[in-house]
Amino acid sequence: MLERQGRVEAALEGVLPGVEHAPSQLHSAMRYAVLGGGKRVRPLLAYAAGELVGADPRRVDLVASSVELIHAYSLVHDDLPCMDDDRLRRGKPTVHVEYDDATALLVGDSLHSLAFQVLTENALASDATRQLQMAATLARAAGSRGMAGGQAIDLQSVGKRLSVPELEFMHVHKTGALIRASVQLGAMCADSAGAVDLELLDRFGKVAGLGFQLVDDVLDAAASTATLGKTAGKDASDNKPTYVTVLGVERSRKLAIELYDEALAVLEQLPHGGGRLGDIARFIFHREF
Amino acid sequence: MLERQGRVEAALEGVLPGVEHAPSQLHSAMRYAVLGGGKRVRPLLAYAAGELVGADPRRVDLVASSVELIHAYSLVHDDLPCMDDDRLRRGKPTVHVEYDDATALLVGDSLHSLAFQVLTENALASDATRQLQMAATLARAAGSRGMAGGQAIDLQSVGKRLSVPELEFMHVHKTGALIRASVQLGAMCADSAGAVDLELLDRFGKVAGLGFQLVDDVLDAAASTATLGKTAGKDASDNKPTYVTVLGVERSRKLAIELYDEALAVLEQLPHGGGRLGDIARFIFHREF
Repeated sequence: MLERQGRVEAALEGVLPGVEHAPSQLHSAMRYAVLGGGKRVRPLLAYAAGELVGADPRRVDLVASSVELIHAYSLVHDDLPCMDDDRLRRGKPTVHVEYDDATALLVGDSLHSLAFQVLTENALASDATRQLQMAATLARAAGSRGMAGGQAIDLQSVGKRLSVPELEFMHVHKTGALIRASVQLGAMCADSAGAVDLELLDRFGKVAGLGFQLVDDVLDAAASTATLGKTAGKDASDNKPTYVTVLGVERSRKLAIELYDEALAVLEQLPHGGGRLGDIARFIFHREF
Repeated sequence: MLERQGRVEAALEGVLPGVEHAPSQLHSAMRYAVLGGGKRVRPLLAYAAGELVGADPRRVDLVASSVELIHAYSLVHDDLPCMDDDRLRRGKPTVHVEYDDATALLVGDSLHSLAFQVLTENALASDATRQLQMAATLARAAGSRGMAGGQAIDLQSVGKRLSVPELEFMHVHKTGALIRASVQLGAMCADSAGAVDLELLDRFGKVAGLGFQLVDDVLDAAASTATLGKTAGKDASDNKPTYVTVLGVERSRKLAIELYDEALAVLEQLPHGGGRLGDIARFIFHREF
């Protein structure tokens, strides 16, 4: 995993504009927001999915960068005072604390555009029509019926008691959509990836995405700020419904184990097994909690 | 122009998710931000450029929608309290006033993703590689070395005295990049549009974009809030450098006339003249001021 994390770091370093280009402060803030931190779960999923179906890793570098840029933009905007008002992220001051609110807004907007630039200005599939589908997949995953929509539901849920299906709907959008897209886009870099593979990988991505958020909820409730690198216990103090507040810690852990088993079962159906996707599933579901 | 404005309104209505889809409030706010207002200058430019080179207007509908979605997202974010803190836009309360800051942030983000979805999930060129170039053109125009970068420079310029080249650099990015892309993308919908046409149209787009901002600066200094549909005199009260503060009203008007002549001269070099682009240039440069 370390090798792949280094690989996406280098790719991101390459696609982010240098501070020698105007506006220098914006480019410096974009680099601050993206480089030198983060678990890079979405890029790792893209690499692992691509590897399974024989994708050229140089194509996956750019796909992995684009999903991480979308993720990074969403964190910068999420941390703003009008949203979650978080001051710490990946162990560092958040972008609006280090710079200012207006810069953070423009950093998020710029990373958002850059993700689509990366995904469209380089050849990432032998068939350009397929590459257009890849860009459309990312756009849908990021938009109002994907990640941004999930965040809107999250905001509206503050102080409310959600049912388990409502909570799942929120998380499938807020976190799940981009994780699912990461798996899909990594695989789509391989010209040989067929409909059956993509369908199985998509089922894996859906389960992994939900599991990731579930484990995050448990971690947020249980862990310390030092372990997380972001403010712990934030969900409860923000009065946000989470799996822990809806199901309790024990039932949440049990559900995580069920989802993990489901994820592995999907991977077993792939012709050559799950490869590194199995390792990432293990990481997602068995983080310290 | 009215017919084309109606046409893009219908196209936008078609691409924006309906309020029957969750999250309903976000979709309602997205529609509020985009529909029923605005001069639609960017779409009009896309239609006029497409028409000149024989583009299918059904393709241009979607290109026109995508540039207007980017423009609308930028207005929603620009109006936020941490940016220009504007309460009135197109004669209506701004999105964060009508809804709230967090919703406005997510509306902008969602419109931004939707623009790329519209530009990639429908066939807009017979050659998919060309369509990827179209999406990359929009991404570059919107990003940190285009519109968002121009806004960052704008923010950093508050209270500063800029030279004319510095001011031009700011405006070429902030307003010019997206206007230029609108002309390019409209023309690129035509399979027959060649490099010479695209090059001439790009020169026109560059001059028109700068002229548009110049006239806006003069209007902001001179017009009333009722005429503008947004808060007048905002630039001066925000202590922002504009063409009027740098050059004065008279020299700004003179420069506008020069740019108008230059725009018309470029159009005359096109094989069949400028068509409706000439009308739009007249509109851009001769708005009430």
